[in-house]
Amino acid sequence: MKACAYIFDVFGTVVDWRTGVAREAARFFDNKKIDLKPLEFADRWRGKYQPAMQRIRSGGRGYIALDTLHRENLDELLEEYDLDSRFDEMEKSALNQAWEKLPPWPDSVEGLEYVKKSAIIAPCSNGSIALMTRIAKFGGLPWDCILGAEIARNYKPEPEVYLASVNALGLKPEQVCMVAAHNNDLEAAAKCGLQTAFIARRTEYGEQQKDDLEPSGDWDQVIDTIGLLS
Amino acid sequence: MKACAYIFDVFGTVVDWRTGVAREAARFFDNKKIDLKPLEFADRWRGKYQPAMQRIRSGGRGYIALDTLHRENLDELLEEYDLDSRFDEMEKSALNQAWEKLPPWPDSVEGLEYVKKSAIIAPCSNGSIALMTRIAKFGGLPWDCILGAEIARNYKPEPEVYLASVNALGLKPEQVCMVAAHNNDLEAAAKCGLQTAFIARRTEYGEQQKDDLEPSGDWDQVIDTIGLLS
Repeated sequence: MKACAYIFDVFGTVVDWRTGVAREAARFFDNKKIDLKPLEFADRWRGKYQPAMQRIRSGGRGYIALDTLHRENLDELLEEYDLDSRFDEMEKSALNQAWEKLPPWPDSVEGLEYVKKSAIIAPCSNGSIALMTRIAKFGGLPWDCILGAEIARNYKPEPEVYLASVNALGLKPEQVCMVAAHNNDLEAAAKCGLQTAFIARRTEYGEQQKDDLEPSGDWDQVIDTIGLLS
Repeated sequence: MKACAYIFDVFGTVVDWRTGVAREAARFFDNKKIDLKPLEFADRWRGKYQPAMQRIRSGGRGYIALDTLHRENLDELLEEYDLDSRFDEMEKSALNQAWEKLPPWPDSVEGLEYVKKSAIIAPCSNGSIALMTRIAKFGGLPWDCILGAEIARNYKPEPEVYLASVNALGLKPEQVCMVAAHNNDLEAAAKCGLQTAFIARRTEYGEQQKDDLEPSGDWDQVIDTIGLLS
């Protein structure tokens, strides 16, 4: 059955967060003559992502939008690098906006435009509505609406994020296809009854990437570019 | 100060619900040889809109999406016309989808495209995410994201609908402009600290329309077409 809606993981699946964050970090480091590898900085910033969300998933903390978690993680990271005093409040806030300036993968915009002709397309990301809106404007992602963590007030892979997204469209899980470059995301979506599509993004974590090079489950579709979704 | 985001009332402000609903109703009536004026039917259906929401605003009922309220109101209306037995469940459900097939006013799509170039645009409507998404796809409305009643789980003109929409964008009320053809909508938005823009839609309720022919408050902007928003 063709899906009525395709919902997408965004960081890594639709946009190249690592290149985008490193590029923004590099601008700041150049400006301040800080000798630090921007890609390493991006990786370590992203490394704090899952633990920060885990505190919310486990119920140890109420829902807080990812923008704020990114900022808390940035503050931690700058302290670890002993760079805290080199950035004032406005600069930290501006650097945190690196997460809004993420380049789409080369096939994303054209692929989404194509899929949009015959189905609803929306992000089902851990990013907030504000963040998803700005990433879409930056990269020209033509979403029909924005679903995901904020409407569920929890984080993937918790089932309510997929189910709240499906409900918000007035559809049943089997009418919706989750598209992701991460096998664990698809595993969680499949458990909720959604269709699944895997797209490999083999350089999301750079040349040395070890995970998610191949589909590890029996997904409904395995595609090379978003425009091949059916 | 130019707004960072423009949020729009939709029914009456961006789309012509009366013509759209009457057109769909006419298709069903023709098919069933029911002798009923489609515009009168649309008006009476819409007439049940505010009372249905009022039960939720007053706290007498939890949040229920407008799609369901429209359907309940349709069931009531068909009984009032003694037409209940002429429609089976699937037909009632299909007729209820009239609210997804609403033509934009002639200036809406081009105007929104223009405003979108320099700001975030989103509906702040009492319609659900599902309904707003389908109206947008039907008419080609290029929203950046969908805000309004569902994310606030309440109905305009309750202040939390405007404030939840502003918060979801990570903005302050004064950075957001509410655009509406209804003075009471702008009054509520202004009380929450938003900027306001009035656009007259003098035939929303047909030739005999009496309300909202002119701005009744000191709104920040009064415009004739959406593309003139500044």
